[in-house]
Amino acid sequence: MEVTNKYVAIKANIDGAPQESDFELKNGSFSLLVKPGSKDVIIKNLYVSIDPYQINRMKIASDSQTTSVFATMIDPGKVIDAYGVGIVIASGNPEFEKDDYVVGLLSWGEYCVYNGPYLNKLDAMGLPLSYYVGALGLSGLTAYAGFFEICKPKKGEKVFVSAASGSVGNLVGQYAKQFGCYVVGCAGSPKKVKLLKEKLGFDEVFNYKEEPDLNLALKRYFPDGIDIYFDNVGAEMLEAAILNMNLHGRIAVCGVISEYTDNGKRAIPDMLSVIYKRITIRGFLAGDHMGMFPEFFSTTIDHLNTGKMQVLEDVSFGLEGVPSAFVGLFRGDNVGKRIVQVSND
Amino acid sequence: MEVTNKYVAIKANIDGAPQESDFELKNGSFSLLVKPGSKDVIIKNLYVSIDPYQINRMKIASDSQTTSVFATMIDPGKVIDAYGVGIVIASGNPEFEKDDYVVGLLSWGEYCVYNGPYLNKLDAMGLPLSYYVGALGLSGLTAYAGFFEICKPKKGEKVFVSAASGSVGNLVGQYAKQFGCYVVGCAGSPKKVKLLKEKLGFDEVFNYKEEPDLNLALKRYFPDGIDIYFDNVGAEMLEAAILNMNLHGRIAVCGVISEYTDNGKRAIPDMLSVIYKRITIRGFLAGDHMGMFPEFFSTTIDHLNTGKMQVLEDVSFGLEGVPSAFVGLFRGDNVGKRIVQVSND
Repeated sequence: MEVTNKYVAIKANIDGAPQESDFELKNGSFSLLVKPGSKDVIIKNLYVSIDPYQINRMKIASDSQTTSVFATMIDPGKVIDAYGVGIVIASGNPEFEKDDYVVGLLSWGEYCVYNGPYLNKLDAMGLPLSYYVGALGLSGLTAYAGFFEICKPKKGEKVFVSAASGSVGNLVGQYAKQFGCYVVGCAGSPKKVKLLKEKLGFDEVFNYKEEPDLNLALKRYFPDGIDIYFDNVGAEMLEAAILNMNLHGRIAVCGVISEYTDNGKRAIPDMLSVIYKRITIRGFLAGDHMGMFPEFFSTTIDHLNTGKMQVLEDVSFGLEGVPSAFVGLFRGDNVGKRIVQVSND
Repeated sequence: MEVTNKYVAIKANIDGAPQESDFELKNGSFSLLVKPGSKDVIIKNLYVSIDPYQINRMKIASDSQTTSVFATMIDPGKVIDAYGVGIVIASGNPEFEKDDYVVGLLSWGEYCVYNGPYLNKLDAMGLPLSYYVGALGLSGLTAYAGFFEICKPKKGEKVFVSAASGSVGNLVGQYAKQFGCYVVGCAGSPKKVKLLKEKLGFDEVFNYKEEPDLNLALKRYFPDGIDIYFDNVGAEMLEAAILNMNLHGRIAVCGVISEYTDNGKRAIPDMLSVIYKRITIRGFLAGDHMGMFPEFFSTTIDHLNTGKMQVLEDVSFGLEGVPSAFVGLFRGDNVGKRIVQVSND
């Protein structure tokens, strides 16, 4: 049985900040039947994740080793894989059956067929399915592993989180508070600042757009220095954080969103401070920490059920909205995890 | 009993590359007698260490946290403390007695009085005293702890060392070879290149001054990428190394000599590579790893006695030569550990 599968594609590789016009909605022909003998799982996508890192897969592949390490580049016109939650329509894999909810690498499309290793059955346990795309999905694991495994916090330490209202940042701040740290975030609007302080319990939050000197801003919020910096933005913020780190400070480099769409924008860190303060700067990807998933999952479910953590998500409806949802990430439009609901459950 | 103590001082704080004219030889009055009731140890300096990091203590202290973390700044006109080997003239401390050789924080002078915690008795075990300033002193511990503790090598890994003929770099390369790694160094003259390959057993060495593109040079020497980069220089070399690092690569930041005398010179690392390749960049100081001293010491003594390691040192005679010895470090004049012998044993 063939249907039309609407999906979002890039028209050409993207250079600089993405525009909605860089994308197109395409129609593919899609079979809802499992190929005989295959282990394909045919999935109807329900909620898909809109993540900043995708921009790095859309750029023109250069021959520098920088880009060659990006898992897989996205080809113009082709289906774009993305994390999400879906429902099984048909399955050639005995682990999955029709009407199972699943979570894993789906696509920015209406349907996808899956035959790789990164798909799991999902029991939503009464929580919204969208939670499993963000707080209980890869964003959550990124925040959890990044904070606990990469930053190795101690109670009472002083933690700074940039892009603190972003999908990962807001969770890092909440984990850090629950763990007993002093947490300061930065965000890009008064609305976000208020939300993080009042709803999520950050100790302090500042609007970086209102700070002419980030170094001085950090000195004001961290008179005794920063022990842990969870970096989501890079560039000047990383430079300022390094100047304010304490001895043996740790920096988890999770993302550098301010650099993604501007090739000229880079951090120029003071390496002398890195030496004298014995700072560790460590890049990481959640995929290396899948072993922490059960611990992350049970801790987070518990925090959500007891009201100790809040889910901050920003869900819009309709595949047509994917390009604007994606493009808006780089303007800081989103508050929390940006998700597009592709169809009703 | 009062004598004249000649010592080297800076005339004023130094900005940029040091010149010999920035220094002066001063005469202080110095008592060879222990103050009654004190635990002072009166020492005649024999060999003193000439280290690049001292330049950072000679700069004008700014109010940035960068400089405030540099142990202690050096005041114009004052005695400059420096690592070295000396002989005890008189002691109020029961742990030391007249004619003991000692190693620790002495000074760029003829004599010093010591009452701090960083002094040890020295049994040279038939080896030259100067070895205890370099290969068997803090330079050696820096190389050993930096390589084994910060870089956490595995046999067969590919190691890059910059400033490979410097006091620390040459030892890192030798430890890495002994450990079973593939080792490439870079240095700044054909003579150094030859020495490192032929005498110290580096697998490959290149002259960075002859390489118009450091990224391409590293690709040539590391077609399969770099697992460990031991950074002594910073700036463009760090940038190029990051582009050539393998997944889970480790960078020990020991020094950034190319940045010390040029405030405008900084590395602009590709943080996206740091994330995707999960690179760890870690600044360190040997002082945090004193617990490794016994292991470092016995291993190194053993390697020296069995001829598996060579000592590369560059010893000149006379306190008057300290300024030129120091200034020359930043032109790369030294081959190996630069030491000034202040007086005969």
